[in-house]
Amino acid sequence: MMLSHNLVLTAVRAALAEDLGLSGDITTNATVRADVRADALLVARTPGVVAGIALAEAAFRELDPDCSFEVDIDDGASIVADDTVARISGNARAILTAERVALNFMGRMCGIATLTRRYVEATAGTKAKIVDTRKTTPGLRVFEKYAVRCGGGHNHRFGLFDAILIKDNHIVAAGGVAEAIKAARDAAGHMTKIEVEVDTLEQLDVVMREKVDCVLLDNMTPQGLRAAVATVAGRCLTEASGGVNLDTVKEIAASGVDLISVGALTHSAPVLDLGLDFISAPQKSSGRPA
Amino acid sequence: MMLSHNLVLTAVRAALAEDLGLSGDITTNATVRADVRADALLVARTPGVVAGIALAEAAFRELDPDCSFEVDIDDGASIVADDTVARISGNARAILTAERVALNFMGRMCGIATLTRRYVEATAGTKAKIVDTRKTTPGLRVFEKYAVRCGGGHNHRFGLFDAILIKDNHIVAAGGVAEAIKAARDAAGHMTKIEVEVDTLEQLDVVMREKVDCVLLDNMTPQGLRAAVATVAGRCLTEASGGVNLDTVKEIAASGVDLISVGALTHSAPVLDLGLDFISAPQKSSGRPA
Amino acid sequence: MMLSHNLVLTAVRAALAEDLGLSGDITTNATVRADVRADALLVARTPGVVAGIALAEAAFRELDPDCSFEVDIDDGASIVADDTVARISGNARAILTAERVALNFMGRMCGIATLTRRYVEATAGTKAKIVDTRKTTPGLRVFEKYAVRCGGGHNHRFGLFDAILIKDNHIVAAGGVAEAIKAARDAAGHMTKIEVEVDTLEQLDVVMREKVDCVLLDNMTPQGLRAAVATVAGRCLTEASGGVNLDTVKEIAASGVDLISVGALTHSAPVLDLGLDFISAPQKSSGRPA
Amino acid sequence: MMLSHNLVLTAVRAALAEDLGLSGDITTNATVRADVRADALLVARTPGVVAGIALAEAAFRELDPDCSFEVDIDDGASIVADDTVARISGNARAILTAERVALNFMGRMCGIATLTRRYVEATAGTKAKIVDTRKTTPGLRVFEKYAVRCGGGHNHRFGLFDAILIKDNHIVAAGGVAEAIKAARDAAGHMTKIEVEVDTLEQLDVVMREKVDCVLLDNMTPQGLRAAVATVAGRCLTEASGGVNLDTVKEIAASGVDLISVGALTHSAPVLDLGLDFISAPQKSSGRPA
Amino acid sequence: MMLSHNLVLTAVRAALAEDLGLSGDITTNATVRADVRADALLVARTPGVVAGIALAEAAFRELDPDCSFEVDIDDGASIVADDTVARISGNARAILTAERVALNFMGRMCGIATLTRRYVEATAGTKAKIVDTRKTTPGLRVFEKYAVRCGGGHNHRFGLFDAILIKDNHIVAAGGVAEAIKAARDAAGHMTKIEVEVDTLEQLDVVMREKVDCVLLDNMTPQGLRAAVATVAGRCLTEASGGVNLDTVKEIAASGVDLISVGALTHSAPVLDLGLDFISAPQKSSGRPA
Amino acid sequence: MMLSHNLVLTAVRAALAEDLGLSGDITTNATVRADVRADALLVARTPGVVAGIALAEAAFRELDPDCSFEVDIDDGASIVADDTVARISGNARAILTAERVALNFMGRMCGIATLTRRYVEATAGTKAKIVDTRKTTPGLRVFEKYAVRCGGGHNHRFGLFDAILIKDNHIVAAGGVAEAIKAARDAAGHMTKIEVEVDTLEQLDVVMREKVDCVLLDNMTPQGLRAAVATVAGRCLTEASGGVNLDTVKEIAASGVDLISVGALTHSAPVLDLGLDFISAPQKSSGRPA
Repeated sequence: MMLSHNLVLTAVRAALAEDLGLSGDITTNATVRADVRADALLVARTPGVVAGIALAEAAFRELDPDCSFEVDIDDGASIVADDTVARISGNARAILTAERVALNFMGRMCGIATLTRRYVEATAGTKAKIVDTRKTTPGLRVFEKYAVRCGGGHNHRFGLFDAILIKDNHIVAAGGVAEAIKAARDAAGHMTKIEVEVDTLEQLDVVMREKVDCVLLDNMTPQGLRAAVATVAGRCLTEASGGVNLDTVKEIAASGVDLISVGALTHSAPVLDLGLDFISAPQKSSGRPA
Repeated sequence: MMLSHNLVLTAVRAALAEDLGLSGDITTNATVRADVRADALLVARTPGVVAGIALAEAAFRELDPDCSFEVDIDDGASIVADDTVARISGNARAILTAERVALNFMGRMCGIATLTRRYVEATAGTKAKIVDTRKTTPGLRVFEKYAVRCGGGHNHRFGLFDAILIKDNHIVAAGGVAEAIKAARDAAGHMTKIEVEVDTLEQLDVVMREKVDCVLLDNMTPQGLRAAVATVAGRCLTEASGGVNLDTVKEIAASGVDLISVGALTHSAPVLDLGLDFISAPQKSSGRPA
Repeated sequence: MMLSHNLVLTAVRAALAEDLGLSGDITTNATVRADVRADALLVARTPGVVAGIALAEAAFRELDPDCSFEVDIDDGASIVADDTVARISGNARAILTAERVALNFMGRMCGIATLTRRYVEATAGTKAKIVDTRKTTPGLRVFEKYAVRCGGGHNHRFGLFDAILIKDNHIVAAGGVAEAIKAARDAAGHMTKIEVEVDTLEQLDVVMREKVDCVLLDNMTPQGLRAAVATVAGRCLTEASGGVNLDTVKEIAASGVDLISVGALTHSAPVLDLGLDFISAPQKSSGRPA
Repeated sequence: MMLSHNLVLTAVRAALAEDLGLSGDITTNATVRADVRADALLVARTPGVVAGIALAEAAFRELDPDCSFEVDIDDGASIVADDTVARISGNARAILTAERVALNFMGRMCGIATLTRRYVEATAGTKAKIVDTRKTTPGLRVFEKYAVRCGGGHNHRFGLFDAILIKDNHIVAAGGVAEAIKAARDAAGHMTKIEVEVDTLEQLDVVMREKVDCVLLDNMTPQGLRAAVATVAGRCLTEASGGVNLDTVKEIAASGVDLISVGALTHSAPVLDLGLDFISAPQKSSGRPA
Repeated sequence: MMLSHNLVLTAVRAALAEDLGLSGDITTNATVRADVRADALLVARTPGVVAGIALAEAAFRELDPDCSFEVDIDDGASIVADDTVARISGNARAILTAERVALNFMGRMCGIATLTRRYVEATAGTKAKIVDTRKTTPGLRVFEKYAVRCGGGHNHRFGLFDAILIKDNHIVAAGGVAEAIKAARDAAGHMTKIEVEVDTLEQLDVVMREKVDCVLLDNMTPQGLRAAVATVAGRCLTEASGGVNLDTVKEIAASGVDLISVGALTHSAPVLDLGLDFISAPQKSSGRPA
Repeated sequence: MMLSHNLVLTAVRAALAEDLGLSGDITTNATVRADVRADALLVARTPGVVAGIALAEAAFRELDPDCSFEVDIDDGASIVADDTVARISGNARAILTAERVALNFMGRMCGIATLTRRYVEATAGTKAKIVDTRKTTPGLRVFEKYAVRCGGGHNHRFGLFDAILIKDNHIVAAGGVAEAIKAARDAAGHMTKIEVEVDTLEQLDVVMREKVDCVLLDNMTPQGLRAAVATVAGRCLTEASGGVNLDTVKEIAASGVDLISVGALTHSAPVLDLGLDFISAPQKSSGRPA
């Protein structure tokens, strides 16, 4: 998934509108002359993984289209404390006003990428891919799924519309697993994949009589997962979910599942601490008053 | 701050649009008949503080305007695991389709309220109020600031537009503290408050020669804060910020400051685990096929 | 695919805005009193298949929320000339003003459903499904794909975002078929299907060395299609495209392909002729002037 | 009517959003490196009339603002099969991703212009102008009316708001022709024209006692039209409508009417077949990976 | 022109959003309990003409859909000081919060209607109609043109799109009056009227050689206007503009022109003073706290 | 308050859309070739104060991004009749089409600035600041408050959301002045100011027992105001409102109040007469026809 420039712009403009209201940055406009320039560094305060550079750049550029924004460390790369991620030069008002929006986006996205990377590293050496869920921040899913990829994870379906995931309630309502899968296949186009959630090995046996693309093994123990993987025997993909954390993920991965989905990647990643350091404080220009 | 119904609706509709795309919930539409009904409970999995009931209700009601949504435990109340927060009865498709959006909003808002409550409790017995910052999720600030209040915290300025907060770069650009404060007062209307950030007691002395509404004491030690509070001597409000966590907040509060601002309330609160339990699985109706 | 009420409303409101401008229906407002009521029938002038009833209803209801709209013949059903599709009773101004928008939507959607039905009937007895393409009217894709389903057809991918379809230029740019498929699989999530376009049996041989979900057999003769189906031998789905019309589709279907995609369904279906017949002309009410 | 750049941009952006969703062109982004360039020709596959070049250009430019787009054959000109209409050079991803949106707009608009031209040519030598109706595609009226002009036709009123057209139901509701016309004249400003629909010569006699700008002669035979034109005797414009097709239009025109309105121009014109031919397949650049 | 409910809603919602921001009416929400009710009268402080009742009603209803809003004196009627125009009963918070938006809309619209009425009365007994111009408040044209009609005036063209008005610069650019009129007639549809501005009787002579619907006699003396009316001799409508005020309008009307356009109606009408009187101050309910 | 470029653009685009509809400036497009250029002066017809230059510039630039727009006299400066405020050179169609929107915005804003300046001058030598109210044109508040500042006035709160103003109904509903102020202080953040309206000196005595930032002295006589100022004795700001006009404002200011709020600044300022003079009429270019 690439980040579309239009989506970035739309999100950044909405965030700036939220922060600026109609009156704007009344502190900066009162205290900094319109023609003052500044140079600043976007710096990491703690180690992590970069994600969301494009949103920071868009925030500054929205308020100063002519500003210079140079990227030192790009999305997906690891950083340590004090690393300079990017360098911004431009109108001082624009930089001061856009700072918080830029950091709010990047802090969250770097936080997600950083947490994802830890899960990916914890499962190194297994075939399991770390995938995200739909437990994302309302309105920011496309950016959070992108951040998961920056951290080395993979994306599950984007939403309710692009793939079929049959859960227990769907099965009950449809009158059984076979009926649910048949109904799904009839309704879906030929380019839509079907996954079915199972909680027990007995359910798995029933599902495997049908043709599906993936089974979601929900809240199973590592032993259960291992048995499930053996049952499936490569006939479709296997995804583990539930009870996944950094302590348990390695053993889950060792069960041989293809995918491990982790809601915490997007719903509980702490922000990564980034800051904007002004190389030199904004200087009063000698020109005419603003 | 009240949550405007219009803002709730707008946010919920955007979140549903994000999850549904143009094709909608293809799984539910394929497997659940249009006339099936369901009853479900919104249940806490872990203890915390409720916030955001209105967003959950709006999500279900947007897809089934006639559904019943009864609140057992309202915003601001504490909950323990297995508490039923609300009861939903209505069209089964609507409930299944709206479930994730409802939980994504409430999980985040309850997470913020829960973390805020912990800070508030940690400072009980002091006069310090816990306040939020502008380190909020882009697009969700109004809901996150509301959640802070549900947890017992208070709100700082909403954005850059509704109050003046003069930081070091503003002071340098304006040519000094006195110049910055004067410029701010000239530009601002008479209904706008002015706060100034100071890092040292020396700076505080300079600021106190001017008339301001609040001083932000940034990254000071508890001793420094105590000295600052003594210097200010009630001439304006005092706000501590920086280095605040659940281990340090009590000692910071003991310094006598009026306010302690905590970015983590909104930028790093883990989600509160909530779930939707179907009382009875959705039943096939006996009526005509959808 | 279901038609979401929100999408219907949004489309209908935009169409009404286009027709009404800011001044509204100046003819009707000048000549018909505000309190006049009318009864009208939505009638077919030529035979076909119904699609889009919800859009007609939404158009009338948008201007008279209390109007009665009863459906006699629902989406997907066949109609002959003079069939009454629906009965509308309500405010006369609302009915007269919304008439054209209602008919513009339904005429197009019925036209698509009708043409689709002819292709489906022409291939009856074969296993081939008739599927649509992305050659839809800008802004109306969700309604046109729904109309295809009303006619008995099936939907291909919705857009560029929900499935992968690798064409010749992608293969060249990627440096070969194997490279393109590998790149696609790496980038796509595990819930995304992959289809590859091939123009010759030689290309098909190369593609079949990889694992794909579907091959698009472009512009092949019926003989070529038969050979391709034999080559694929059930390892993936086969889709014929190019040179499909009502004269050729039967022979193409006889080749044994799983799917036949037809751009004309959405880009060249003539409108179905529908009209609104007023049962009795709108009567002047005896009440006070509007 | 000129095509406003803003309207073009708005329509193209909506169409791209529909095709790209949030995830974008996942095939192209996976298989084509970000720095690959391509050259392509927009080519006619069948003869017709060009319309909508600006929408194709906007589609490519929206995704690659720096692309080159050179027009060989402009709106309104006739083309034969294999004519090159325009030449595009730019980023390969942008061209591949925008291709379908560009063709969907132009195909439809060229189809309308082409059909209009056939009607115009069929009535050559008469004074009758070919005019469009409000039977347009919802959301695209401004582009379809422009395409009618590209084909040599003329535009009727744009919508319900910019001119008055009194039909039978308006007359009944107003209590008579004279009453309807008077009510319309009272309500309308002095810059608004008034047209009245008549089905019979008797009705025409009544209408001609009033002062109107145009009469719509609905579903009359050529003989009836000739008599109507004689009755009107130049006192206002005459417009024929109903039963108009390429077989009948010449005789209708010969009746001496000023205008012939044809709904089929916009509701049933088949798409004109246009394609994008890559001069050379997109080449892998030698630079760094995207 | 009728006021469309959709346009009213859109304008009122935008105005409320402007006044409420994201935090809402923080005074009312803090001091008035959610369940308090109030009864209020919309009262005229000075005499005038009513216009815009629908906007006031929409403002209150937007915040309390269940409120009662009874109209005593409708749009177009004259009022004297202390007249009650409407009675509102409902949620006290809603009434207090919506009050200013309701009054801002109605005050302006009543102001326009009142000034228009004065011009209409000043020209009573002549055939001249008072018409508005495009000198309206950006964004509010539809409401201001409606207010002009409430005052007894008539509407000129709505905007640049619905009628042709050829001014001196158009004539120069086109190469002459005849050329300009011909170009306009070729470009415009047959339902579009054409008016030409003339400054002198010499220009009028030239214009009258062509066929136009109206001449705009700009900045002529009453004598000049009389001569112009004589020259036109009923061949088209005549409109006087420029130098029109309440002192001059009667003599201008006496010249025999058909129309007098007055920019001041919409660009300089002082607001009509309306107020909201609470019958009884909002009472604390005895129920549970909000 | 600065005028944000985004807000200016949004307002100007909406105003152009209102004037242009979908068909655009049909007069100019028909009579002026696309390649004609023009030079024009924005000229004052009457004396006043400039405000809103940025909106005029944006209107012209929106239609011709390459036009030249040079400002001779900037916002806040005084002008006399015949002063040239700005010089525009560019595409003739763009200038003719944007003219009315540019003048509609500037005329209103200059009118407000001009009236404000008169109030400011009338109170020269006193300490009273002239401030605006919320009696602004719906949708244009940010521009009207900016115009007040251009005239030398100051801004009151922006809306209901950024400061607290407790009026009589709030006090009754809260159960008393002390209760209302306490409720407001509890609900508001520490950066929000509180003002209380009082009608009598008795009420003022009660209010002064609480701590507020400002008192609004409503409809008091100059004597009453003087007594109130004495009572307050500098403990908070004092604002006079009600019965303020150019005849009374001086005596009101002499009472010693800090602020005088004047609704008429924004609700009843007559437009300032500005015009666009073409230096030379648009010339036909010698190039190819448009």
